[in-house]
Amino acid sequence: MDPAPEARPALTTLQALAALFDHALLRPDLTDDDIATGCRMAVGHGIAAVTVRPTDIELAARLLDGSSVVTASTAGFPHGASTTAVKIYEARDLVRRGAREIGLVLNTGKLLSRQFQHVEMEVLQAARACHESGARFKAILESCYLAADIKVIALKICKRCEADFVVTATGFGPSGWQPGDLPLMARVLRDVCLIEAAGAIETLDDALSAYSLGASRIGSSHTAAILDEWKARLAADSAAADSGGRFLK
Amino acid sequence: MDPAPEARPALTTLQALAALFDHALLRPDLTDDDIATGCRMAVGHGIAAVTVRPTDIELAARLLDGSSVVTASTAGFPHGASTTAVKIYEARDLVRRGAREIGLVLNTGKLLSRQFQHVEMEVLQAARACHESGARFKAILESCYLAADIKVIALKICKRCEADFVVTATGFGPSGWQPGDLPLMARVLRDVCLIEAAGAIETLDDALSAYSLGASRIGSSHTAAILDEWKARLAADSAAADSGGRFLK
Repeated sequence: MDPAPEARPALTTLQALAALFDHALLRPDLTDDDIATGCRMAVGHGIAAVTVRPTDIELAARLLDGSSVVTASTAGFPHGASTTAVKIYEARDLVRRGAREIGLVLNTGKLLSRQFQHVEMEVLQAARACHESGARFKAILESCYLAADIKVIALKICKRCEADFVVTATGFGPSGWQPGDLPLMARVLRDVCLIEAAGAIETLDDALSAYSLGASRIGSSHTAAILDEWKARLAADSAAADSGGRFLK
Repeated sequence: MDPAPEARPALTTLQALAALFDHALLRPDLTDDDIATGCRMAVGHGIAAVTVRPTDIELAARLLDGSSVVTASTAGFPHGASTTAVKIYEARDLVRRGAREIGLVLNTGKLLSRQFQHVEMEVLQAARACHESGARFKAILESCYLAADIKVIALKICKRCEADFVVTATGFGPSGWQPGDLPLMARVLRDVCLIEAAGAIETLDDALSAYSLGASRIGSSHTAAILDEWKARLAADSAAADSGGRFLK
């Protein structure tokens, strides 16, 4: 069995949780106005990153310029079924247009066909293309399609290729990920890749649970609502402490 | 209101329906074996085309070589949110690898942001890239996201850019298309682009209904089951005719 995850420092401020968030602006029907609203929210809350569709990267880079929020985008999203040539071309093109983090969706069909060499060569090339140009590289697994043995092989590929982050899901698959996926990822990726929990984070409790299980990033399209809920909970805890109730630590 | 669609010749043979089918092999979790099985089914039934994921194009081209089945693939699939540069690169790359038809997903976000010039320039470049290399060009609309006025603008763009086919949906959106979409498409596209009904064709009746409403192609991942159902229905009709029942015409 997986060892219990290491205890993580408790989150006690609004900023501590906000700094984990990667706000997802990836739905096909978002308009330019939606992208602008999302980027302004991200700057206002001081979150870690905003991930936009490739076609929005220049707009997002302009809106986030001068802030601490990282401009991120995706290659081969969401199916991961483009050829390696196209995925690498897309990753380079996005970096050239202003992306500082690129999430590449691994080729699920090739993983399930046990063509691991194909997958590893693709991840390696993408990681190199990003790192050579100073961008971070994120490997996105569509976990719902992968049995445990394939998951472990995919995670080891990500680790060998030195992905900065491994992401649990695209958010557009038939489901998110299993409860055991984060501990499994933490065990395999330990000390090499950080973990981003994405694809099924809709509430504050989802986010806090993912953090406690080892996620260093929370990818969600519900960022503002979750941070508002956290703010209210911190205020309630603080009021309870002032009136002699339990003290938040 | 839309005029009633022109009456279409009745389908009376197995081959007449089979010849309308574009078999979709696009799910992210299909393996190489699934692609091979789908291509063999396509050749066996003599259907029009097989659409595979970009990463499978060489395998499909090899398996369909020497048959009448067209090898097809997609660019910017399924979200249509890649940059124009990447979509055109992908279309050219696919043609070079053996695709004879390319389906490009229109950029839904740009349509909803009323950036029609962006969309038209992209469709025009993709259509030219395909036609210059002898491939057919298909424009894929994700109809469920588009209000009627935007649909008409998108269809007129496809018509001006001389798309060979306009496709109703990707099959991966939150829903398919509305009953009125096919007559609307037939009215706007008349005599310039053919219509492919795809994204919600699961039964024989779905397919026959789409044909009667003007579709010249049926895109489905249920091809074999639908053709088996048609074969059984033709046999039942024939038996009824032999025993003095209604005559199939």
